[in-house]
Amino acid sequence: MIYLDYAAATPLSDKALKAMLPYFNEEFFNPSAAYLPAVNVRRAYEKAKDDIAHVIGAKGADLVMTSGATESINLAFSLVPQGAEVLISATEHPSVLENAKRAGNYKIIKVDQNGRIDIEDFRAKLSPNTQFISICLVSSELGTIQPISDLARIVEEERQRRAFANEQTPLYFHTDASQGLGLMEVKLNRLGVDLLTLNAAKVYGPKGVGALYVGHNVRLKPLNVGGGQEMGLRSGTENVPAVIAFATAITEAEKHLNGERKRLQELKRKFRQSLEDLSNIKFLGKDKVQLVSFLPIVLPGLDAERLIYALEDKEVYVSTGAACAASKGVKSPTLQAIGLNDTEIAGSLRITMGKHTDDQAVINASKIIHDVINAEIERLGN
Amino acid sequence: MIYLDYAAATPLSDKALKAMLPYFNEEFFNPSAAYLPAVNVRRAYEKAKDDIAHVIGAKGADLVMTSGATESINLAFSLVPQGAEVLISATEHPSVLENAKRAGNYKIIKVDQNGRIDIEDFRAKLSPNTQFISICLVSSELGTIQPISDLARIVEEERQRRAFANEQTPLYFHTDASQGLGLMEVKLNRLGVDLLTLNAAKVYGPKGVGALYVGHNVRLKPLNVGGGQEMGLRSGTENVPAVIAFATAITEAEKHLNGERKRLQELKRKFRQSLEDLSNIKFLGKDKVQLVSFLPIVLPGLDAERLIYALEDKEVYVSTGAACAASKGVKSPTLQAIGLNDTEIAGSLRITMGKHTDDQAVINASKIIHDVINAEIERLGN
Repeated sequence: MIYLDYAAATPLSDKALKAMLPYFNEEFFNPSAAYLPAVNVRRAYEKAKDDIAHVIGAKGADLVMTSGATESINLAFSLVPQGAEVLISATEHPSVLENAKRAGNYKIIKVDQNGRIDIEDFRAKLSPNTQFISICLVSSELGTIQPISDLARIVEEERQRRAFANEQTPLYFHTDASQGLGLMEVKLNRLGVDLLTLNAAKVYGPKGVGALYVGHNVRLKPLNVGGGQEMGLRSGTENVPAVIAFATAITEAEKHLNGERKRLQELKRKFRQSLEDLSNIKFLGKDKVQLVSFLPIVLPGLDAERLIYALEDKEVYVSTGAACAASKGVKSPTLQAIGLNDTEIAGSLRITMGKHTDDQAVINASKIIHDVINAEIERLGN
Repeated sequence: MIYLDYAAATPLSDKALKAMLPYFNEEFFNPSAAYLPAVNVRRAYEKAKDDIAHVIGAKGADLVMTSGATESINLAFSLVPQGAEVLISATEHPSVLENAKRAGNYKIIKVDQNGRIDIEDFRAKLSPNTQFISICLVSSELGTIQPISDLARIVEEERQRRAFANEQTPLYFHTDASQGLGLMEVKLNRLGVDLLTLNAAKVYGPKGVGALYVGHNVRLKPLNVGGGQEMGLRSGTENVPAVIAFATAITEAEKHLNGERKRLQELKRKFRQSLEDLSNIKFLGKDKVQLVSFLPIVLPGLDAERLIYALEDKEVYVSTGAACAASKGVKSPTLQAIGLNDTEIAGSLRITMGKHTDDQAVINASKIIHDVINAEIERLGN
């Protein structure tokens, strides 16, 4: 099996699994209980939050733990009053787009042919009425890294203008950092955002757990009310094993960041080179601003869905785009936004590598991709 | 260690753990992906939902999987427009109370000295304007089983009256069945509710996963929007391992229901008998309408918090009430509602048994409880 869909899901790291196991049936106590074994669980939980926060340069108390990136994004959007002006990019995850739609008044910032935010368009659309901005750190379809810190500077200028003009309209900047962790620096002091979404399931942690970093000046309202956990911002018994596994996985990924980035950069170079002879192939994104794990390609005239099933037969697993949208046959807004035509969109594959992708996997995958594509071209020629 | 706080948290069953393990790092695929291994994960997930639903007499498609009971309850309350009339009981979990408060217009149904709903008060407070009713199946502090099916009949009468009078006001009945699963029959056709909350963590499943049963006539709105999972009612990548473990745990508990109920009934009788000689002890609730695992007691004049720490020293773990409220020093609304005075509330302990509680544990716990209480009485006498 050659798995090349790490942007859709990652296997749980062995260390993370080992770290979480005792919390299922030995240290299973409710962290809100008063007796010592439960207090120890509470301490382990708080330490795990600190460890997760540490990776992005924050403290555990700055994080609201959630059931994943989608909940984090929804929680961030709870800051948006109905009808308030929202800015998003054209390369957002469906949960950002759907939340923007639900809030009712949003503008989409243009991206260039590589899927990168058009900074002038951002500047033009950022108005005195804008209250909330949500732009991903890395596009989940293209791997394109957005210039978050540049945008944050523009946001800060607008905030200062408002303060000087004595305007009271709040302005929050959220980034969905689901993709990128463990393969690039994700540091709050550099990014300059007020809110940041983390997702364990993309960084070799378990499914069903994420976090929202909440800056000190943000007055968040809870989505879920109840027992008052997470400082009243997210009620519900803490998912102790999952949070501990998340902390282990993210710490491990952070530790190997530089080596892994170099390793994948080199693998990607070879992979790309090996595919360049395919007729009409087009590589999406620009190397300098693309996450090292991403190799999205277009094979105009071919049907990506057919290719996926043909590759599946040879145990090579890739995706047509973000998994959530792909399964519903929706035309990717990201691929439309970078100017692909319908034929190109229909022929687009997303290859994403991860820690178990090695030289041999790339060599074998490349060979199988060639075979499958040549067979498909031949079939169409007949 | 003698753990007697099963109502706060249960250890994950070995079978459930074993069932979930492959889904962490072998079958870790995103269930929305198109290739076969991911489709197999999707099938296992849907089968697990069917298995969970089967226990309550429903189908998998009737369930919205959530991150736990608190989210399920919040999702159920999303049916309540701001200001709409809500009825709850005086023995609800904080998440029901907080949601009722947030909705803005609620009445609390009285309970008797055993914490059981006053049906006449329910009948009196159910008005032509009532839109939502949320009453727990079993009180998490007293173990008192509420007469849900009797209430459902009254609700159905009111619905028929409205239909006949051509009144359009909707009326939904939700029950939080977090406590009770695996120790009593929880069947939808008997209960007659429109919405039902399930919680894995109370039935030897993992933390961080629950479900909301949604009746066919209920038009639910999602809290979290995004990728459109769970029929659009709860977006976010499915927590596959947790849902599979939940299914295994709940199926196992259901299988042993009758035997376990009898076993705990007998243990409870012995436990109660062994405590009867404690001076001034008062047993809360009435045996016939109390879940077999519950043994809530009052020791007037003693400080339950002190007792908990003294018991902790001897490795006996009990609670002062619902863990979430207990840790915040809030006076229990449930204990107030059944007419306890402040001294009694201050001296109340919640003992709850579970599958690892055996004869020897009860004998040892009883002896330690005697020692601790006698020492405390002696200390106060000096």
